[in-house]
Amino acid sequence: MAKNTWKHIQAVRQAAPLVHNITNFVVMNNTANALLAVGASPIMAHAHPELEEMVSICQSLVVNIGTLDDYFVKSMLLAAKKARELNKPWVLDPVGAGATAYRNQVLSLLLPYRPGVIRGNASEILSLAQMKGAATKGVDSRAGSNEAIEAAQYLHEQYGSVVCISGATDIIVSKARQTFLHNGDALMTKVTGLGCSATAVTGAFIAAIEDPHEAVTAAMALFGVCGELAARQSNGPGTLQSALLDKLHNITEDEFAATLKISSNAQVSL
Amino acid sequence: MAKNTWKHIQAVRQAAPLVHNITNFVVMNNTANALLAVGASPIMAHAHPELEEMVSICQSLVVNIGTLDDYFVKSMLLAAKKARELNKPWVLDPVGAGATAYRNQVLSLLLPYRPGVIRGNASEILSLAQMKGAATKGVDSRAGSNEAIEAAQYLHEQYGSVVCISGATDIIVSKARQTFLHNGDALMTKVTGLGCSATAVTGAFIAAIEDPHEAVTAAMALFGVCGELAARQSNGPGTLQSALLDKLHNITEDEFAATLKISSNAQVSL
Amino acid sequence: MAKNTWKHIQAVRQAAPLVHNITNFVVMNNTANALLAVGASPIMAHAHPELEEMVSICQSLVVNIGTLDDYFVKSMLLAAKKARELNKPWVLDPVGAGATAYRNQVLSLLLPYRPGVIRGNASEILSLAQMKGAATKGVDSRAGSNEAIEAAQYLHEQYGSVVCISGATDIIVSKARQTFLHNGDALMTKVTGLGCSATAVTGAFIAAIEDPHEAVTAAMALFGVCGELAARQSNGPGTLQSALLDKLHNITEDEFAATLKISSNAQVSL
Repeated sequence: MAKNTWKHIQAVRQAAPLVHNITNFVVMNNTANALLAVGASPIMAHAHPELEEMVSICQSLVVNIGTLDDYFVKSMLLAAKKARELNKPWVLDPVGAGATAYRNQVLSLLLPYRPGVIRGNASEILSLAQMKGAATKGVDSRAGSNEAIEAAQYLHEQYGSVVCISGATDIIVSKARQTFLHNGDALMTKVTGLGCSATAVTGAFIAAIEDPHEAVTAAMALFGVCGELAARQSNGPGTLQSALLDKLHNITEDEFAATLKISSNAQVSL
Repeated sequence: MAKNTWKHIQAVRQAAPLVHNITNFVVMNNTANALLAVGASPIMAHAHPELEEMVSICQSLVVNIGTLDDYFVKSMLLAAKKARELNKPWVLDPVGAGATAYRNQVLSLLLPYRPGVIRGNASEILSLAQMKGAATKGVDSRAGSNEAIEAAQYLHEQYGSVVCISGATDIIVSKARQTFLHNGDALMTKVTGLGCSATAVTGAFIAAIEDPHEAVTAAMALFGVCGELAARQSNGPGTLQSALLDKLHNITEDEFAATLKISSNAQVSL
Repeated sequence: MAKNTWKHIQAVRQAAPLVHNITNFVVMNNTANALLAVGASPIMAHAHPELEEMVSICQSLVVNIGTLDDYFVKSMLLAAKKARELNKPWVLDPVGAGATAYRNQVLSLLLPYRPGVIRGNASEILSLAQMKGAATKGVDSRAGSNEAIEAAQYLHEQYGSVVCISGATDIIVSKARQTFLHNGDALMTKVTGLGCSATAVTGAFIAAIEDPHEAVTAAMALFGVCGELAARQSNGPGTLQSALLDKLHNITEDEFAATLKISSNAQVSL
């Protein structure tokens, strides 16, 4: 499994996909750097008159609703619609889903364009599935990842999306298939936008890898492993951020294989 | 005094307040990271339809006018109004006050919502008080902190705000009470947005600590002490930024007590 | 040559020019920090009602079209027009020129205000000159720097701008004068916005140095040398970013002179 995942990581570097991001103001710099570090080329653009051209020249699209306004919402809808029309893969990061009525309304407009991937914390995934009235504490998660698996399966059935529930354990869900990733470090929750960066990196992987479940798994595995390795050599959240970008850029197959902790829904550690 | 201040620092970590920020594009990432590092949860959101809900679910609000446009100004006014209605504490950072007529106009609309705290450099505080025609050199300060004490007292009388004049010495002013903080390092002026980060951190402290003068003092003391400690182990402004976030996260009581330089208006070093 | 260039670097620190930036969301923080590190004072502001005042109080203007929308485009046009009227030097960074029709349209509106400097990669400069139908791969360059010299000369004739074609070799072009800078490091292409930071730094240099060709050369030389020195002590793109800001702040004349690789169109290594 580590071998196959590493192959995907290399495939992304070779393909060097152009990834179009419509994301929030807080994380634009970090997510662009994360994409560069894994070998992709980021484009950040949201002007309405150029959105369709941008989607056309890129290999995938990332939509992150962290900071919204009328203009950006329209940008997101235009881009998601175009991606759907061109059959380009796109990733949705439903930041703060359930926190306000407005966020839910925006998400209800985006989902019909059927994102190839949805990545959020358990609370956001639960909220998105409208299965319960899960209250989100800002962009943090209150609910455990496991609780959200049913919600993820529901979303998969509705929209065909591979769903990634991120948390202490990241769970990738599609149909009956579930993959569990046990990497990462608690210090990562003290750096803003690492979830958003993971989403952006996922955008690079779905552009370059055919099987979306494997693409999301490889992206999240790379991110979690690098975060864990970076945390070991960091003094706190400030140095973690730099060390993570370094590691995403220079990780070796040996380091990756020695650190990866992955299991499937058969609960067999691979 | 150090003991009491440290108690407040711990109180913020325990309360883990949700702090709503409407701030400028330059510093959104850094201020979110500073909030996480001191144990708070940042929310950055400015969409009009969700602002009142956001203010409602948060424990405090930070408004920073660094970068403005029509949409953001309306966001700031909506949020400040709601915070006032709900009696939630909010902090105003009047970046560039006095630099343009527009900034002064925006500030004149925000001040009647009576911010619990105003934090700016001496030039901004002077400008805000309209006591003299102080020209500001961008977001830097020309006037010394001491010159602005009278202006701060005037603002306190008008709006009930605790006023923090930041500079080589940070001065916290409310009524007859003045606290002086002598920490920090000149290298901090070579990193963009550290003043904005101090403001954001202040937002976390007024959410968790009852006495606003003590809250502002504790926030600024923590920030100045951590900046000073971080500067000692930095090679320049780039590494300072990372080291500061690390230190905000992992400072110990001993380090804090050994570094803090604080005095009151009785000029008694405590 | 190194001596003269170093003199310019010192002149910027002494002048401490106020540089007004209308730039993209991705790089605002980094470019502000780069300006502070070379001794300038950054202002980021785009609100229409204050733009003319901002241009008036600043010594130069930087316009970077990385992320666009209707509001920002109007901000850019208002500011460039005012800079032209006041005869203040301004720099244009035509990010993604040629990528979309909209970008080209925005650029065609900006160019008549005659930027003192245009800095872009070869593909952007080619596109700007409309000499060939060069397709740009996002903000990266496909065309080599040398191919774009003719395009740069054309732009110089049309608008009077000193043109900097950045790449593995940076080429500064004005009339018959060409200067080649052979510093930098491939790792710099893995950090987002370093080109934008170089543009911002150029904005500081044209504010403080009379000869614009020498100003651009000194700015790009400093940036390339510091990037090269920073890359040597970095583990990857994350630490490079911090090390670069440190080096821009604390580089010595000896380090600079020992590292600078510069030649003129006479191909004489100086």
